[in-house]
Amino acid sequence: MDLTAIKNPAFLKEMSNEELSELAASIRTFLIEKLSVTGGHLGANLGVVELSLALHKAFNSPQDKFIWDVGHQAYIHKILTGRTADFETLRQYKGMCGFPKRIESEHDVWETGHSSTSLSAAMGMASARDMMGENYEVVPIIGDGALTGGMALEALNNIGDEKKNITVILNDNEMSIANNVGALHHVLGRMRSAGKYKRAKDEMETLLKKIPAVGGKLATAAERMKDSMKYFMVPGMFFEELGFTYFGPVDGHNFQDLEEAINYAKKTKGPKIIHVVTQKGKGYQPAESDKTDNWHGVGPYKIESGEKIKSSATAPAWSKVISEAVLEKARTDKRIAVITPAMILGSKLENFKKEMPDRLFDVGIAEQHATTMAAGMATQGVKPFLAIYSTFLQRAYDQLLHDIARQNLNVFVGIDRAGFVGADGETHQGVYDISFLRAMPNFTIMMPKDENEAQHMVHTALAHEDGPIALRYPRGNALGVPVDDKTYALPIGSWEVLKEGTDAVILTFGTTIPLAMDASESLAADGISVRVVNARFIKPMDEAMLHEIFASDLPILTIEEAALKGGFGSGVMEFAEENGYNASSVKRMGIPDYFVEHGSVPEQMEEVGLTKENTIDSLRKILRMNEEQRA
Amino acid sequence: MDLTAIKNPAFLKEMSNEELSELAASIRTFLIEKLSVTGGHLGANLGVVELSLALHKAFNSPQDKFIWDVGHQAYIHKILTGRTADFETLRQYKGMCGFPKRIESEHDVWETGHSSTSLSAAMGMASARDMMGENYEVVPIIGDGALTGGMALEALNNIGDEKKNITVILNDNEMSIANNVGALHHVLGRMRSAGKYKRAKDEMETLLKKIPAVGGKLATAAERMKDSMKYFMVPGMFFEELGFTYFGPVDGHNFQDLEEAINYAKKTKGPKIIHVVTQKGKGYQPAESDKTDNWHGVGPYKIESGEKIKSSATAPAWSKVISEAVLEKARTDKRIAVITPAMILGSKLENFKKEMPDRLFDVGIAEQHATTMAAGMATQGVKPFLAIYSTFLQRAYDQLLHDIARQNLNVFVGIDRAGFVGADGETHQGVYDISFLRAMPNFTIMMPKDENEAQHMVHTALAHEDGPIALRYPRGNALGVPVDDKTYALPIGSWEVLKEGTDAVILTFGTTIPLAMDASESLAADGISVRVVNARFIKPMDEAMLHEIFASDLPILTIEEAALKGGFGSGVMEFAEENGYNASSVKRMGIPDYFVEHGSVPEQMEEVGLTKENTIDSLRKILRMNEEQRA
Repeated sequence: MDLTAIKNPAFLKEMSNEELSELAASIRTFLIEKLSVTGGHLGANLGVVELSLALHKAFNSPQDKFIWDVGHQAYIHKILTGRTADFETLRQYKGMCGFPKRIESEHDVWETGHSSTSLSAAMGMASARDMMGENYEVVPIIGDGALTGGMALEALNNIGDEKKNITVILNDNEMSIANNVGALHHVLGRMRSAGKYKRAKDEMETLLKKIPAVGGKLATAAERMKDSMKYFMVPGMFFEELGFTYFGPVDGHNFQDLEEAINYAKKTKGPKIIHVVTQKGKGYQPAESDKTDNWHGVGPYKIESGEKIKSSATAPAWSKVISEAVLEKARTDKRIAVITPAMILGSKLENFKKEMPDRLFDVGIAEQHATTMAAGMATQGVKPFLAIYSTFLQRAYDQLLHDIARQNLNVFVGIDRAGFVGADGETHQGVYDISFLRAMPNFTIMMPKDENEAQHMVHTALAHEDGPIALRYPRGNALGVPVDDKTYALPIGSWEVLKEGTDAVILTFGTTIPLAMDASESLAADGISVRVVNARFIKPMDEAMLHEIFASDLPILTIEEAALKGGFGSGVMEFAEENGYNASSVKRMGIPDYFVEHGSVPEQMEEVGLTKENTIDSLRKILRMNEEQRA
Repeated sequence: MDLTAIKNPAFLKEMSNEELSELAASIRTFLIEKLSVTGGHLGANLGVVELSLALHKAFNSPQDKFIWDVGHQAYIHKILTGRTADFETLRQYKGMCGFPKRIESEHDVWETGHSSTSLSAAMGMASARDMMGENYEVVPIIGDGALTGGMALEALNNIGDEKKNITVILNDNEMSIANNVGALHHVLGRMRSAGKYKRAKDEMETLLKKIPAVGGKLATAAERMKDSMKYFMVPGMFFEELGFTYFGPVDGHNFQDLEEAINYAKKTKGPKIIHVVTQKGKGYQPAESDKTDNWHGVGPYKIESGEKIKSSATAPAWSKVISEAVLEKARTDKRIAVITPAMILGSKLENFKKEMPDRLFDVGIAEQHATTMAAGMATQGVKPFLAIYSTFLQRAYDQLLHDIARQNLNVFVGIDRAGFVGADGETHQGVYDISFLRAMPNFTIMMPKDENEAQHMVHTALAHEDGPIALRYPRGNALGVPVDDKTYALPIGSWEVLKEGTDAVILTFGTTIPLAMDASESLAADGISVRVVNARFIKPMDEAMLHEIFASDLPILTIEEAALKGGFGSGVMEFAEENGYNASSVKRMGIPDYFVEHGSVPEQMEEVGLTKENTIDSLRKILRMNEEQRA
């Protein structure tokens, strides 16, 4: 079948299961081929081919609302809603987004990227529907990993109580991003095994209804006895307890089973959950046989062998630099522990886990819990390293402020993927952490210029015994510079002059230092001397150096790969204001007030004007302004 | 018994149940008397008198760690740990905190204020304990309401899986802050009623152990049958499924029952939950008989009658002003709905609930879910009013940024209790919302000067169809000004000149406007003419007016009852920088970079220097600086 001919999913209604199977095979071939070039979330999508087809056959999108939790598994949904040709530009600049996107299609009714939002969105849509007297189905599709996120559990609790007509599809692949953790995982496991020998829910329900109602205490006992029998027969008692009607477990690769379960659910009022068991990577042998989930999100690969086409970078990944430095320290300091919310792979913590399994805590997708757990550890003298991507750390704002900063506890927060993240796009940009952390009392915030400074910063953080300290590091690879044999602690708040200069000063840190160095060199050719400062402590700033700079009345350019509003540059202006200096000598470069979409990091930098040319322009401008002011 | 003689809880070990009962009575009398003068969280504390005594008798604080979730129910704990005399200064400036506070006592091992953190903290402490090879008990005490907060559920899922030795005390008073909602509430209800006719868990366990183990499929079936029987006998199967050993339900006012349950739990390894049923307000008739939970947190009252001693204020509460204005609009606009996370009373939504129960959604303590649910509603054309206290909105940072702002949805966020909150202190100050919301693209932020402007802002927000809009309003009562009969929409971003002036400009909004007006008047007497601007839109700002002010080179003073870092004043400086104006003409007043503790709001304002005197001083200073610059 020519997938590019698909304009909408209506054609599925007439398809037999055999035809659906053929279509599924075509889609798999297409995905394996396309993604081998563009990269993308292969494993998750291969797991939901049949499920996506069955859902689009059984329901009527866009009247019925599909809400794809996390959203990286919506590729088949995109194919079925007329976007096959756009896979050429998947996750590329100005190309098709890797997640549902409302401007792309009327079938994308909800945008995602972060996990565990689908049930709350569904509750909102179902409530709106009922309020407005409309009539459509609301169908969130959520993975077993995402289900453990706190907000999904809040939503379960609310939906089960409010009795809204919602059909939850639980996509249970026994694996969230990596191996699943948490008690719910075991609950689901029991459901799966129970389902293997008993699928007679219907008859059971009929039987139970025949038990006559009686009054008083006996009624309670009888009800309970009913429940008890039901518990034996119905694997999903956990969800039934929460007010859901449970269907399953269903083989997520069997069209017949899927159709039956969905039809049962459609006939049932109130909140329903269909427990669908799928296999991540289904149909592509290299992905199927991989148990470490290396096929969750991939770059280009060779189709035949599954061999990943490596980038030419030889420097280690930033995550690796940091996690190895922490591991090295942990070898001699028994108080060091690591907490990660389901990101052992992403944050490169495999070695730590292997070497010190008892000191690594993978709490699943649960950033709030992870953060407050770190605070709890710190009260008892443990030094937790809490590694969270910048974008996911947003989930733990209150816990950072309230449980860590307010109690001034010695927690070391590793802010992974800080700055632009490239192809994952606007839902994953790590550009707000500076503006939100800077306003939290007691927090120290650092960012290294290279992997050597990074290891000293890890030392600094673990030696710091005066409150929380955060270390931001970008996505991708470090610079490949040589590293010192011995690490040491940097004085808190100390900046470093990378290049002397007498006409102007650039204050910057991390990824934008090369911009500053390049611009400074270019201007040197014109006889303009620009000092470049590695402002590696974003908070507290190097006040001695700032006093010196402001006192000498040099124009200042701040550069940050982060949101401008309330960012580092604003902090420099605040310093000037607080100390009676000339704040108008400061010019800021950074990310303006809108959401920057997917593309490569260089494209994103270009789009917001974080370029060498703009840096030079800005420097020339402030030099002119400074002269005018002096004149 | 003389409660002030208590230095630590050791004396409890030798007490009989009769003596404990007498002590409980003394404590109740003491609390009812003291709180009638100071106010405080009476209801919650009267409910846990016996429980607190039983816990302090059974465990050894501070070696064993009590973690009081939310923390407003720790008064008896404070009495038992030597702080009886400090109740004279409860919740007063420089006096005893209304929540656990580590500097007050070694028995306060964890500080709280926000709900649902105790289980994560417990997991952190227990993990630290095991890592460091120590040996003590970790005992979080959590209410049934707090249990529905997402992070508590994340923690349950993690603890149940990791098998840490933790004893959770579930304090089930069938009421969180007001009537409880959510499916878990029903789960607990079934446990309570099941417990009434069956308490033979021990014998049941013994019996079940006698069923021989068999192999293969039969084994699974047998296991399941065991579980099924257990389900009939053990009320707490829900928690057992999650990996906890369940004890209960236990009468929380019966020392014998409490002691037995705790002793069983102590003998059991792994995660345990003791389900304790208590009555809020127990022992004080006016509180016991009140079902609307008006006795949760109270001001002064007459002991005999329970009559509340009203403040002399005649103006309506800010929350009331806003909620009534929303209700008024909802009468003619069917698309308006209200979402509240367990704050119907606090946010004064009783009338809305009475009049439009189908359009009011109380989701329980679940700010993340509430926020994303609002986003979900907005995608379907409903106009949700999401009322959340500023301090609790911190829990929904990611949902605000990611689900509302990024999708640019028309959600009306009511930020209740914005600014200083007084006696609840540092855990409840609403002073960070400006710094965190200002960095979120698409968000409009407003704050009214009085109740008349407030109703126009409600109109503005509900008429706004171009993305999210937030309305901040303070704790306490409005000003008592007359209100217009007809409301209208304010132009987005429009400021208002309250008083003309030619020498300097004050930009401020909300609660600090009177400061500005007073200072301006005082200076007028010295011949200095200060313009006062009601900068009611914090974002976007009134750019036309800012251009005019900066172009005329007037010195500017910004005043805000909010964190200075990244706040409104920084926004004004950013505007100057972006537009090439003189940013050094701006001086900022606001809340410095530390956590401001409990006291009255005027005391808190005084402490951070938000006073008329400082305003005058600051104005004189910038006038001098401006003259020097011109000279």
